[in-house]
Amino acid sequence: MFPLVILAAGKGRRMGETKPLVKLLGLTLLERTILAFKEAGIDKFYVVVGYKKDVVSKHVEELKKNYGIDIDVIENDEWEKGNGTSVLAVRNYVKKFFVTMVDHVFERNVIKDFVESIDGKKCVLLVEKNIEEVFEIEEATKVKIREEKIIDIGKGLKEYDAIDTGLFFFTEEIFGAIEEAMRKNNANVTDGVKILAEKGKMYWYAKKKGYWIDVDTKKALKVAEKLILKSIPKKEDGFISFYLNRKISLKISSKLCNFNISPNLMTTISFLVAIAGSIFFLSGKYLYTILGGIAIQIASIIDGCDGEIARMKFLASRYGAWFDTVLDRYADAIITTFITYNGWVIYKENIIWILGFFSLLGFIMASYSRKEYELRYGEKMHGGIMDKLSKRDIRLFSMFIGSFFNMAFEFMVAIAILHHVTIVWNLWRKK
Amino acid sequence: MFPLVILAAGKGRRMGETKPLVKLLGLTLLERTILAFKEAGIDKFYVVVGYKKDVVSKHVEELKKNYGIDIDVIENDEWEKGNGTSVLAVRNYVKKFFVTMVDHVFERNVIKDFVESIDGKKCVLLVEKNIEEVFEIEEATKVKIREEKIIDIGKGLKEYDAIDTGLFFFTEEIFGAIEEAMRKNNANVTDGVKILAEKGKMYWYAKKKGYWIDVDTKKALKVAEKLILKSIPKKEDGFISFYLNRKISLKISSKLCNFNISPNLMTTISFLVAIAGSIFFLSGKYLYTILGGIAIQIASIIDGCDGEIARMKFLASRYGAWFDTVLDRYADAIITTFITYNGWVIYKENIIWILGFFSLLGFIMASYSRKEYELRYGEKMHGGIMDKLSKRDIRLFSMFIGSFFNMAFEFMVAIAILHHVTIVWNLWRKK
Repeated sequence: MFPLVILAAGKGRRMGETKPLVKLLGLTLLERTILAFKEAGIDKFYVVVGYKKDVVSKHVEELKKNYGIDIDVIENDEWEKGNGTSVLAVRNYVKKFFVTMVDHVFERNVIKDFVESIDGKKCVLLVEKNIEEVFEIEEATKVKIREEKIIDIGKGLKEYDAIDTGLFFFTEEIFGAIEEAMRKNNANVTDGVKILAEKGKMYWYAKKKGYWIDVDTKKALKVAEKLILKSIPKKEDGFISFYLNRKISLKISSKLCNFNISPNLMTTISFLVAIAGSIFFLSGKYLYTILGGIAIQIASIIDGCDGEIARMKFLASRYGAWFDTVLDRYADAIITTFITYNGWVIYKENIIWILGFFSLLGFIMASYSRKEYELRYGEKMHGGIMDKLSKRDIRLFSMFIGSFFNMAFEFMVAIAILHHVTIVWNLWRKK
Repeated sequence: MFPLVILAAGKGRRMGETKPLVKLLGLTLLERTILAFKEAGIDKFYVVVGYKKDVVSKHVEELKKNYGIDIDVIENDEWEKGNGTSVLAVRNYVKKFFVTMVDHVFERNVIKDFVESIDGKKCVLLVEKNIEEVFEIEEATKVKIREEKIIDIGKGLKEYDAIDTGLFFFTEEIFGAIEEAMRKNNANVTDGVKILAEKGKMYWYAKKKGYWIDVDTKKALKVAEKLILKSIPKKEDGFISFYLNRKISLKISSKLCNFNISPNLMTTISFLVAIAGSIFFLSGKYLYTILGGIAIQIASIIDGCDGEIARMKFLASRYGAWFDTVLDRYADAIITTFITYNGWVIYKENIIWILGFFSLLGFIMASYSRKEYELRYGEKMHGGIMDKLSKRDIRLFSMFIGSFFNMAFEFMVAIAILHHVTIVWNLWRKK
């Protein structure tokens, strides 16, 4: 895999802070860039520093220590001339390499797709073709293309087809091109690219779905935060999760991500809230039942935070996903048991217990059956509405609503019936 | 994929039946050969018929209809001269092809491994190097090898390094070689192979783990049956399953496979036996409890038959596996519910119900946690003894034993504790 050169030497003219160290959802811009590209498979990084180089270098040392990633610091004393000098600074270290700006934030899919598109034979710029979507277009660098090549590039282009995203792949040819540009007193990367373009040696690759943004102002920083948060909800999220829980949990996660709270800790907290809350159901008194209902809905909301923080901070792990899933089922089981007890206190009939078993079975098996399907068929089961209605967000929300009518048990059984119907329906339709 | 030519023209001299139609665990030898190679990826078959060609051809028509497989019948009127004439009979149809004898039975892995080893450039014979393991060695064809080539082959070889398994891959060169052999009045495939060997054009591939057998006598047919049955138990089978249930269920399956009973029907029967049997637990009377215990152990044994029949008759499907797993969990849940009720009849305490929830949760979650692990990690969890003790065979067997002490409930809770400990232990050790 080719290395990544991160241009982090400039002075954030419009933000008044040391750019690489600006925090975005719990990670510095530099940290975020490195972790995002690492996830795409890149394992060697060069960070070119200039402005406040001591502070930035120290931060790089921390990152190396914390993540065990191979990162070299390259000093560029000529950084004030233009960011082209930062590319020239790595000349002795790399031959073929990716280049990105430390303050450009890309969705992980965008990075992965670009990295995978590179064959290493030619210089390529990732461009945005949906021009109307670009944030602060007047500040953007415009690109003119013809067939698979770039023929002109610059901020002032009147006619253009795409926008420069600031993510490049270069071969050694860039060094000569930047030197040539510097002889004309133009020392930016795009000046070098313009020269390559004039020689027919610069290609483009169009960004597919996914955000990217140049975090050049405080306002852009806010927008970047929103774009990241918006990308987190999953396609398979249930209705309550999508329309209610996520809106709240994302707010919580965006605060919590600034602290050193691991996703697994959040999983545990959500579990404990569910358990503690469900104890309220044991008394059978109306007021306590309502409190129990509120607590499990809170647990349901918090349950989103582990995955959100994991994705915000590149902390997702298969262990975390496994742990979360197993603990969720345990929490569901304890809630179901206690709500069944709540029902028993009210009705004092054995049938209540049997219905409790029925409910517990439905809640676990709806998920179990999906997992087993996925294991056997090697793909997710796309079950449509029925499946969306037999998920955790819905079942906890039903009990929450039910508790206000002092009917948590009845609501639980009703939603359990739906779960069982879904299981049987899926077994039937896949036959 | 290269086609397979099945030599089915000869007269079973030592068996007194039409060889291709001899039944082995519910399938004719011809059917078994075709399904086994189909599973290894082969999709075009030529069956060379001679002796009783009308009967065999009719059977091929049935197979084509039943399985929708592409099979052509090739008639060889010269079959009495030797099986080399059967290879010559396909001359106009194939250029590069596998050849097997209809009465040679191979374990599916052996076939798959050989098929995958073939690059199509040279003639190869699959040989057995573990000579002492060969059934009826005196009847076997011996092979002498040097480096990667075969240098001599024949029944009468005094010195030899391996045994001919009767599974070949040929290029067109075999046709000329057999013709050359026929000019010397030798008309068997091995005579052609001998000539290729003399020209340094015959290669060998050593069979890896797995059985193969030449079903030439009634005795060999029995041995073949045993070899197939022995290959069925799975590595992940629990202790009770391995040492007790399989021994009985394989006997049942080896009878049932002669009828048109689908694996999914067996799954359903096992489920119904479990439900019907567990109803006995509801009365709380000792005698009925014992009957309930016996019924669930019977259900546990029958539960093996679906997979066994599926593997014996090449009927395994991902739907079948999914259906079986989901129904097993439902059966477990109903048994657990009814045994809990049995406990409640005896003790009349609410804690019994709570312990019932605890047990149900443990039984489903032990499996759930393993599945989720497998999904996330892309590999099975190798949990050792703890995992072997938290499987279905053990839990049903515990309740069976417990029922004799009128303590089905207590035994159930005890084994459930073990399940929960295993779940927590696995989450802990993988951290």
